[in-house]
Amino acid sequence: MPRAVVLLSGGLDSYTAAAAVRSEGFALYALTVAYGQRHAVEVRAARAVASALGVVEHREVPLDLAAFGGSALVGDGAVPKDRRLDDGAIPSTYVPARNTVFLSLALAWAEAVGAADLVIGVNALDYSGYPDCRPEFIAAFEHLANLATRAGVEGRHFTVHTPLLALSKAEIIRLGLTLSLDYGLTHSCYDPGAAGEPCHRCDSCRLRARGFEEAGVADPLISRAG
Amino acid sequence: MPRAVVLLSGGLDSYTAAAAVRSEGFALYALTVAYGQRHAVEVRAARAVASALGVVEHREVPLDLAAFGGSALVGDGAVPKDRRLDDGAIPSTYVPARNTVFLSLALAWAEAVGAADLVIGVNALDYSGYPDCRPEFIAAFEHLANLATRAGVEGRHFTVHTPLLALSKAEIIRLGLTLSLDYGLTHSCYDPGAAGEPCHRCDSCRLRARGFEEAGVADPLISRAG
Repeated sequence: MPRAVVLLSGGLDSYTAAAAVRSEGFALYALTVAYGQRHAVEVRAARAVASALGVVEHREVPLDLAAFGGSALVGDGAVPKDRRLDDGAIPSTYVPARNTVFLSLALAWAEAVGAADLVIGVNALDYSGYPDCRPEFIAAFEHLANLATRAGVEGRHFTVHTPLLALSKAEIIRLGLTLSLDYGLTHSCYDPGAAGEPCHRCDSCRLRARGFEEAGVADPLISRAG
Repeated sequence: MPRAVVLLSGGLDSYTAAAAVRSEGFALYALTVAYGQRHAVEVRAARAVASALGVVEHREVPLDLAAFGGSALVGDGAVPKDRRLDDGAIPSTYVPARNTVFLSLALAWAEAVGAADLVIGVNALDYSGYPDCRPEFIAAFEHLANLATRAGVEGRHFTVHTPLLALSKAEIIRLGLTLSLDYGLTHSCYDPGAAGEPCHRCDSCRLRARGFEEAGVADPLISRAG
């Protein structure tokens, strides 16, 4: 089986992206970056998701992006609540160069384990306005990967898989349900409580809720919490 | 003064690249990645160099690239000694995707501190055959940086400075001497002894020795060690 390195955050999107690529016949190598996000609960969710996916290996890499600052997601300012979604602005939860850093680390591991395929759960529709979730960013990274590496120079062709790129949150959820995923394992909230409970008011909580509503199914995370 | 984020390894090249950009009127923000290289002595050299350069700020980011493996420089196999240089092969000291990861981190910090300029001391002549030291790699990263970031989307144009790209090691040393640099502060060896002393036989030691010889000056690191 060909190997694919998948960036696994513990969220709904990366879980679904990983499962979609697994269904194409790839053996999964899951990479989680503990980058100083407010929500360490995400890393615990990533472990549960990796286990449910039956990945060959799950690596957690600590990397303190919070030391650079510049984002509400790593402690610089409050996570915005109840803001208008889809207003076209890049929100303060944007983390400088996050997906560039994440894909670079995935590329490093992929080269070392002999994988030519990277997977990232970005989507450009119901996304939060992040520049590093756009198709032109992904294409530029793929081009870079093939120039940057010994494997690329020697003829391995790196591909960045983005199976969710053109899907709405509701379509992602429907795709995941056809793949029998348990979304009760995932975590989405940008600003969870002490026990990891979602705030229901940040962008990520609201996009998730809207997605389940539009998909016409209950969110198992909410129903379980009762 | 405009700000530039410079990747500072503690070696001769990054010191010279930083000084060259400083002489153009940039305020320097120095970034050193402690990535699990065999030679922790390099990180100590980076501190000395950062201090000599009078940087505004020096950040050391721990990131365990050794966990991914795939390189003699992070403990996978022996560092090659006395091998033929310039044989066109990529040596086993190549670290998967290293400069991609390093530039990504520099980009993250640059975006956070309001810098549009990144500096990396790669050179394509007396280099060791690494794919991520080539001009086409640098151009691809620059393109990526402007797509990947909020700052890029909002009109800041990121530039990756590579003042050493077309210089031989001897030319780099001559440039450094015109800038009054103290190369006795730097460290180059891939496989130093317990006290940090150079092995004189790895590619990096030999390229350095050849550079000083061709420049017609003594290496202060050697003469001081007596």
